[in-house]
Order: sequence, then structure tokens, then C-alpha cells
Amino acid sequence: MKRIRGVSPVARMKIGVIDTTFARVDMGSVAVEEIKKLEPTAEIIRWTVPGIKDIPGAAKRMIDAHGCDGLIVLGWVGREFVDKLSYVAYSVGIMLVGIFTGKPIIDVTVHEDESDDPKKLREIAIDRARKHARNLVYILRDPKYLTKWAGKGLRQGYPDVGPIK
Amino acid sequence: MKRIRGVSPVARMKIGVIDTTFARVDMGSVAVEEIKKLEPTAEIIRWTVPGIKDIPGAAKRMIDAHGCDGLIVLGWVGREFVDKLSYVAYSVGIMLVGIFTGKPIIDVTVHEDESDDPKKLREIAIDRARKHARNLVYILRDPKYLTKWAGKGLRQGYPDVGPIK
Amino acid sequence: MKRIRGVSPVARMKIGVIDTTFARVDMGSVAVEEIKKLEPTAEIIRWTVPGIKDIPGAAKRMIDAHGCDGLIVLGWVGREFVDKLSYVAYSVGIMLVGIFTGKPIIDVTVHEDESDDPKKLREIAIDRARKHARNLVYILRDPKYLTKWAGKGLRQGYPDVGPIK
Amino acid sequence: MKRIRGVSPVARMKIGVIDTTFARVDMGSVAVEEIKKLEPTAEIIRWTVPGIKDIPGAAKRMIDAHGCDGLIVLGWVGREFVDKLSYVAYSVGIMLVGIFTGKPIIDVTVHEDESDDPKKLREIAIDRARKHARNLVYILRDPKYLTKWAGKGLRQGYPDVGPIK
Amino acid sequence: MKRIRGVSPVARMKIGVIDTTFARVDMGSVAVEEIKKLEPTAEIIRWTVPGIKDIPGAAKRMIDAHGCDGLIVLGWVGREFVDKLSYVAYSVGIMLVGIFTGKPIIDVTVHEDESDDPKKLREIAIDRARKHARNLVYILRDPKYLTKWAGKGLRQGYPDVGPIK
Repeated sequence: MKRIRGVSPVARMKIGVIDTTFARVDMGSVAVEEIKKLEPTAEIIRWTVPGIKDIPGAAKRMIDAHGCDGLIVLGWVGREFVDKLSYVAYSVGIMLVGIFTGKPIIDVTVHEDESDDPKKLREIAIDRARKHARNLVYILRDPKYLTKWAGKGLRQGYPDVGPIK
Repeated sequence: MKRIRGVSPVARMKIGVIDTTFARVDMGSVAVEEIKKLEPTAEIIRWTVPGIKDIPGAAKRMIDAHGCDGLIVLGWVGREFVDKLSYVAYSVGIMLVGIFTGKPIIDVTVHEDESDDPKKLREIAIDRARKHARNLVYILRDPKYLTKWAGKGLRQGYPDVGPIK
Repeated sequence: MKRIRGVSPVARMKIGVIDTTFARVDMGSVAVEEIKKLEPTAEIIRWTVPGIKDIPGAAKRMIDAHGCDGLIVLGWVGREFVDKLSYVAYSVGIMLVGIFTGKPIIDVTVHEDESDDPKKLREIAIDRARKHARNLVYILRDPKYLTKWAGKGLRQGYPDVGPIK
Repeated sequence: MKRIRGVSPVARMKIGVIDTTFARVDMGSVAVEEIKKLEPTAEIIRWTVPGIKDIPGAAKRMIDAHGCDGLIVLGWVGREFVDKLSYVAYSVGIMLVGIFTGKPIIDVTVHEDESDDPKKLREIAIDRARKHARNLVYILRDPKYLTKWAGKGLRQGYPDVGPIK
Repeated sequence: MKRIRGVSPVARMKIGVIDTTFARVDMGSVAVEEIKKLEPTAEIIRWTVPGIKDIPGAAKRMIDAHGCDGLIVLGWVGREFVDKLSYVAYSVGIMLVGIFTGKPIIDVTVHEDESDDPKKLREIAIDRARKHARNLVYILRDPKYLTKWAGKGLRQGYPDVGPIK
């Protein structure tokens, strides 16, 4: 298969994974496992930080230090209003790192209030981490790859809702 | 017609289109079709990413890689409060890419709660994508082109409301 | 009168005006007219974009292309919560362009929910555009010029409320 | 007393003051007066802009033009929700100028809804301007100076609440 | 133990501590004490500013002046809505300094409304400052160090909630 990562082809993908100790599901391991399944030769670097607000800085440092082709970052957000505010700031931060470094950074974010059932929450987290790990690999292979699903109502953490006919 | 794209004239427009797999309407195709109708010689590059928060980074990478004259980006925003927070972060991100790159980036954003009727939502999405594709071409032709409609209460996705007399 | 624009004196003011087709009052023309009244020799460049989120990028491009001494940008914001979120992002964007370019950018923003009476809304828009056009010229003449009204409770779009005695 | 401003000692402080015509109390004059009391030899530059969203750009221009050692900026925020959104954007802007220029910028912000009693509001504004003018001078003298009050529950505009024992 | 701080090993850690006079608990001293316990040879620089909005600029200046390997910053946020808005802006600011400088900056933030019981609030503040001081040292030793606790539901200020089984 011809590979276009970002734009220029790369012999062997180098992918960064950053997760948190705040999360209640080990989504980082799910992402690592999924990346290895799709890209067995990929080099994976994994760092862990306390919480989401520590991710943007770590993402920048990891890209600077290791020259990753792309990153998947996995955050967990509490139920409170201030947690949601932290989420806004975090989202701005992650987007800035993507803009400044020119590297795709896919963020997997689980909000604790997505479900009151811990088991359901775990399922959401695992499904989302897995699907977004695939998304990152697809984008690194070819930024046009996902166009076949454009507007198809894909969801991560939940079943796809599909397009509006 | 004399053409001023951004500021300096360009022989053949190169326009980028970025949409998402999260969207439930294939707005990217609508935009591509409309651009071709107005500017048959335009070169169009289309990428697709999972969701809105992936758009700003992709926009920066696309401009860096392909030197597009302008971009139209098409996002879909869920109903929840956190979706709206993602929208704020996304909006800041897109504006920053426009500021950093010096290229016009028109964003077409549909909010899932604009209508409870899926058909209506689809109509909104298509109309908005089409009208903003035209806006992008107009701006690339001449940044003064839209002044004839300044303050005229134009809407995309809905009928124009018109100026207050 | 001795003129200090920004900081260094400029022979002839070059002022940029950016407004939108979304607005329901042609505030751009009001601003142009007012600038001409105060500064008959000023060179005025006017661009129009679809909505507020398109203004920051256009402001940056206009300053880069034309080297304006300052800008007045005129936006119109809808009634919905998401319109207000767009307003936050827009405000951050405009401030960044001011910080990055070192040029004064006065923003005239009218919120559709400032009045339920269209005529009143129109009056607000015109008064605000006019007064802020003056403010821009004053600031370009001398950044110390407005100090005589510091803390005086001046309002644009409404009558001044005055200082607290 | 040995003086460390920011980090390196400066013979004579150059302090910038930026306030607004929107404010209903002349806090800029209060700040100027207080700085002169503490630092009689300080050179003070004062600019006035229409409202808070004009402050970050003016702060950047003032530092670039005059090379101030530090700034005190004084803003007044209305009661409405959109005023609070402007406040967020303003706060981000001011912080960015501080980050980009490497100069301490202390912001004195009064919210119109802090009190329904105009006299009380005036007292808050004056007290806050005065105390923060002192804070700026202290920080410019020595960034370690305030450590003796770390965690002491100091307030500006109100009486100190003190530490929790 | 082999030490990797950020990425490259450092002979002796240089850690910055920034706290506020607004806080009602001396969290800076707690952080200093904890760092010394874990890293007796660490060089610690401590600055104090009035409130959270003064921290990002101070963090940037401290890193520029002293070349710290990492920072712990300790903020206290009031109960009001505008305090929460200041918190968003602050969070964006801190993340930007981390992105721009490439240095880990751990923020310890206590919200006054986390408890109505001052004693409980004090306990939260001390526990959070202590645990995050450890987190900073761990990250500076090795950015992979915390991976053993990834997804384990660790909390600072409260007991750990643990992972979802």
C-alpha cells in the first residue's frame, strides 16, 4: 500500500500516545493495542500526565523530542461545571499544538457524565479510544482516506448514527 | 473579469475543502460541486477528518502542503453543552489558522439542534454549504465583492432576513 | 494640530473598514462617512465578509496587504447561545490580530437581542458605528487623546451613563 | 533597598497605565497617584481606550513603543452575559500580551454588578486600583516581594479575608 | 536511578513555584516542602503574585530568567461566575506558557466552592499541592513514570476514586 502520512510518505510510523492518571479507564493501552494491530511496525511512544490540562504541553514536548508523525491523546473530564471549563481550555490547547507543530493530534475525550453506569462508561471509553486510534492511523496513511465516510454520521463511543437521507 | 484573490491576482484558484465523518450530511460534496459550478478551472483538494476539533490542524497542514488560496471547512456540532464548548474551541482554532496563514477560511457549521426535523436539518446543511462555497469564491475573486450586500441581512441555511429599514 | 498615530506621526491616515453581509444595518457605510467627516484626507479601504468569524482573518490580511494605520470592524451577533459563543471566539480573534499586528482595531458589535424593536436596533447600530469611528480616529491621532474622558461612563449605541460621583 | 524589577534591576521605573472611557470611575488617576506615592521617580505613561477589548492591543503597542517595565490596566465590565463573555476574551488577550512581552501586566477589573450601590462600586474601584498599583510596584521591585503574603487571602476592592487557619 | 527530565537528563532539578496572595492557604510552602522531600538537591525558585491571572505571565518570565526545568503553579478561584471565567482564561494562559516554553507546568487549582467547610478546603488545598508537587518531580524524572497509574482514577485533593473494573 502506498502511504501518505500527513502529506509526505514515511517509512515507519512514529505515533505518540498521551493519557492521564485521572482517567478511570486505561484508554492509553487500548489505543496502543489498536495501533499495533493496524500498523505492526509502528513505533509507539507513550507518556502519562496527571490530567487533561497537562496534555497540550506534554504533546508539544513529545513532538519536539521524538518527532512523532501524529499523536493520540486521551482525556477524562469530570461532571462539574469547572471540569467543563477545563475542557474548553484543554481543547484550545490541543488544537494550538496541532496548528503549531503541523502534526495530526486526535483527542479521545470521555466525560464522566456521559453515563451513570460505570460499565457503560467503560464501554464508551474503550470504543472511543479504539476507533480514534484507527482514525489516526488512517489519517497518517492518507488525509483523503476518510472522505469515503464524509457526512456518514460516524460516532466514537457510540454506534454510528448514520447520514440523514 | 479582473480577479483579485485575497489581494494579488491568481491564475487558477486552488481551494481546500475539509469536512468530517461526524457530520450527517455530505456537505463537502455540496461545496465541491458549487465551487466547480462557479469556478470550473479551480483545483480542489478535499480532506476528511473525524470531527470539528480535528479541522484546524488539518487546515494548517493542508495550506502548508498545498498552498491553497482559501479553504471551506464544514463542521457538524452535537446538541449537548460539551458539544457547544467544543464549538468555541474549534472556532478559536479556525480563526487562528486564518490569522497565521493569511488565507481566507470560511466555516460552515451546522448545529444538530437547529431543527428536530432531519429533513429540515439536511436542507439547512446543503443551503449553508452551497452559499458559503459561493462566498469563498467571491472573496477569493475580490475582497470588496461582497460590499454590495453589506448590512443586507444575508443568511446561510435560512432565507435572508434582509436589512432593517 | 500635532498628530501622533499609534505612536509615530503619519502624514495621511490609512484606515480599514470591515463589515458583514450578516448584519442588518449597513454600519460600514456609517463608519466610512464618519471617518471622512473627521479626516477628509484619510484613505479608506473597505472589505465585506459573510459573518463575524470571518473578520479576524480578513483584518490580518488587510493590514498585511495595505499596511493600514488602524481598523474599524463591524459585527452583528444573533440571539442564540451559539451566536454568543461565536462572539467569544471572534473577540479573541480580533484581539489577537491587534496584538500581532500592532495596529488599533476598534470593534463595533451589535447584538440582535439588544432590542426587540428593529428601529431601536438600527439606532443603536448607527450610533455605535459613528462613535467608534470617531474613537478610532482619536486614537490614531493620539493615544492619549481619550484620557480627558477616562472613567466618564461613555457609551456607544446608548447615551453616556456618566461617571459615578 | 536593593531593587529587582522583573529580574534585572532598573534605575528608574517606567510604568504604563491604560484605562477606558467606558469605566464610571477614573481608576487610572488613582493608579497614577498611588504609583507616584510609592515610586516618586517613576516615569508614567497613560493611555485611554474606549473599552476593555481595546486594552490588550493598546498594551502591546505601548510596551513596543515605550519599553515599559510593567503595566497596570483598568477595566470596567457591564452586567450582561455578553459583557462577561467580553471579559473572558479580554482576560485571554491581556495574559497573552504579558506572555509575549515578558512584562508584568496587572489588571484591575470592576464588574458593574459587584454592587447595586454606586457609592459602594466607586469604593471598590478605588480600593482595587490603589492596591493593585502597589502590587505592580512591589512585583517590579522584586518578584519575591509578595511571598510574605502568599496564601494570606488578600483582596483588592474588599477587605482581606485572611488565611484559613 | 536514571533520570530523564522532560527528555534530556539534568544533573540538578531547578523547579519554579508560583503562588498567590489571593489564596487562603499557603500552598506554595507545601509544594516547596514536598519537592525538597523528594528531591533534596533541587534548586527551588519561588515567586508570588496577586491572583491567578498574574500567573501565566510570571511563569513565562520565571522560565526565561531562570531556565527552570519545570514549574508548579498554585491558584485559588472564587465562587462567582466571573471567577470561573477568569479560571478559563487562566487555564488557557498556563497551557500556552507550557506550549511556548516546552517546560512542564503543573497547576494546582482550588475552587473556593469545593467545600463550605474551611477546614475541609484547607485539607483539599494541602493534599492537592502535595500530590501535584510529587507529580511534577515524577514527570521531570521521567515522562513515562506515571504510566503505571494511567487510567487508575487518581485524584488530588480527594481520595483516589480508582479505575472502573
